[in-house]
Order: sequence, then C-alpha cells, then structure tokens
Amino acid sequence: MRLSHIAIAVKPEEYEDVIKRFKDVLQSEYYEKVLEDQKIKVAILKLENATLEIITPTESGSTIDKFLEKRGNGIHHFALKVESVKDEVNRLKGNGFMFAVEDMKGAKGGNVAFIHPKSTGGFLIELVEDEY
Amino acid sequence: MRLSHIAIAVKPEEYEDVIKRFKDVLQSEYYEKVLEDQKIKVAILKLENATLEIITPTESGSTIDKFLEKRGNGIHHFALKVESVKDEVNRLKGNGFMFAVEDMKGAKGGNVAFIHPKSTGGFLIELVEDEY
Repeated sequence: MRLSHIAIAVKPEEYEDVIKRFKDVLQSEYYEKVLEDQKIKVAILKLENATLEIITPTESGSTIDKFLEKRGNGIHHFALKVESVKDEVNRLKGNGFMFAVEDMKGAKGGNVAFIHPKSTGGFLIELVEDEY
Repeated sequence: MRLSHIAIAVKPEEYEDVIKRFKDVLQSEYYEKVLEDQKIKVAILKLENATLEIITPTESGSTIDKFLEKRGNGIHHFALKVESVKDEVNRLKGNGFMFAVEDMKGAKGGNVAFIHPKSTGGFLIELVEDEY
C-alpha cells in the first residue's frame, strides 16, 4: 500500500499565500482543480513519491468550510493507494470498519472511499485507485 | 523532495487500539521506539513509499501531551526528506521562514529541523536527512 497524498485545508483568505509558501518549501510548481460537487478548489503540488493537496472551500457551509470553522487550517486527511477500492472497502467492513463515503468517483475517474474517523481513532483516511 | 513520514498524535489510553486499527488498514507490522528526551513513544508502520508514525506522550505536560489536550487525536506533522537539513534551513531562512527547531538530532542520528507553523499557514513540517 502506498501513501498517495496528504490534503491540507486552508481558509480562503489564506489560500494563495499558503500555496506560495508550500511552493517555496517543496520547490514544486502546482496546478489547480475546482471540484464543484465538493465545493472546493484544490492546488496540487507534486513531490517525488506523493502529492500534496491544498484544499479551500468555494462555498460557506460546505464540509471543508465547517472543518475550518471548527479547527482552523489543518491537515484534513491522507490517502492510501489501493488496487481496488471496492475490495478494500469490503475487506475493512468485514473487520468492523465504518465508512463516511464508500461509493464516490474521484477527480480522476477512479473509485474513492473515506474510512470514518470513528473507526480509526479520529483520522480521516481516503482510499484511492487513481493517483496524480 | 520526498514525503518521508506522517506523524499522528494519539492519547495514551487509545494508543494500543489505534495501532491495532492502523495495522489492520495498512496491513503492516510495526516496531516501537521510546524517545526519552521528547517524552514520547512512537509506533512505526511502513508503507511502500513512506512511513506512518503513531506518537503518544509518555509524560503529562510534554509537547505532544499539550497538543492532545488542545486538539485531541490528530495529524501532528509531516516530514520531508532533504539531502542536507542545514542547507535547507539556510535556504528557507533566506526566504523568510522561521524554525521551531533547527538543530536537533533525530532518532536515527541525522539532523532534523521543524519549520515553524507560523511560516507555513499553520502546519508543522519536519525536515529529515535519514529515513526509516
């Protein structure tokens, strides 16, 4: 299993500044995606072996907006690359894990799922098939 | 630059249980280290391309203990592998970054440094020379 990406959540008013800082630290360029159904904008910075996502909400009241209101800027989740999200969801459900999202298409077309933080001790973990 | 590890902080009373859950998700064995000067215990789980550290305090009042008191279980920092921590600290200081820790030996002997969250928009980023 590979660590595919880390996603950090950032307030809209700090988004451009945080991108600039991370570009500087990682010495990496970035590109941007808007995910309208999730009401977020994502800046994607590539490292040698994984990817950093800088996420900001495009609408108030969205999931990420609520996260930011509660906790401020912070690491939101990390993602593991698996062969088949469906198989992995079934395996983990068999072991008693619950899922927050288990049947969604990711930004690149492949299936994604999110293990519920209640099943991991408080951590949101995404499972992905496709990587950047 | 490589993503070297993600470190999650966990309350002592949930530490064993969280290790068990992550072993199950990652399908990975682990080993443990006690870092007496930092007053933490760390469970180290290996992924294909990176490492997960599960950190818990061994004394109340320590840095990690304070983090947990304030925020509860959460992702504490992530680490980037660089050739030379000293060179990277100098480069980033030249660009206006501040450091929380800049002259420390890590668990494996190499230098480590922590960029101050004030310089990154609220994220604690470690620079490491040695990896697991």
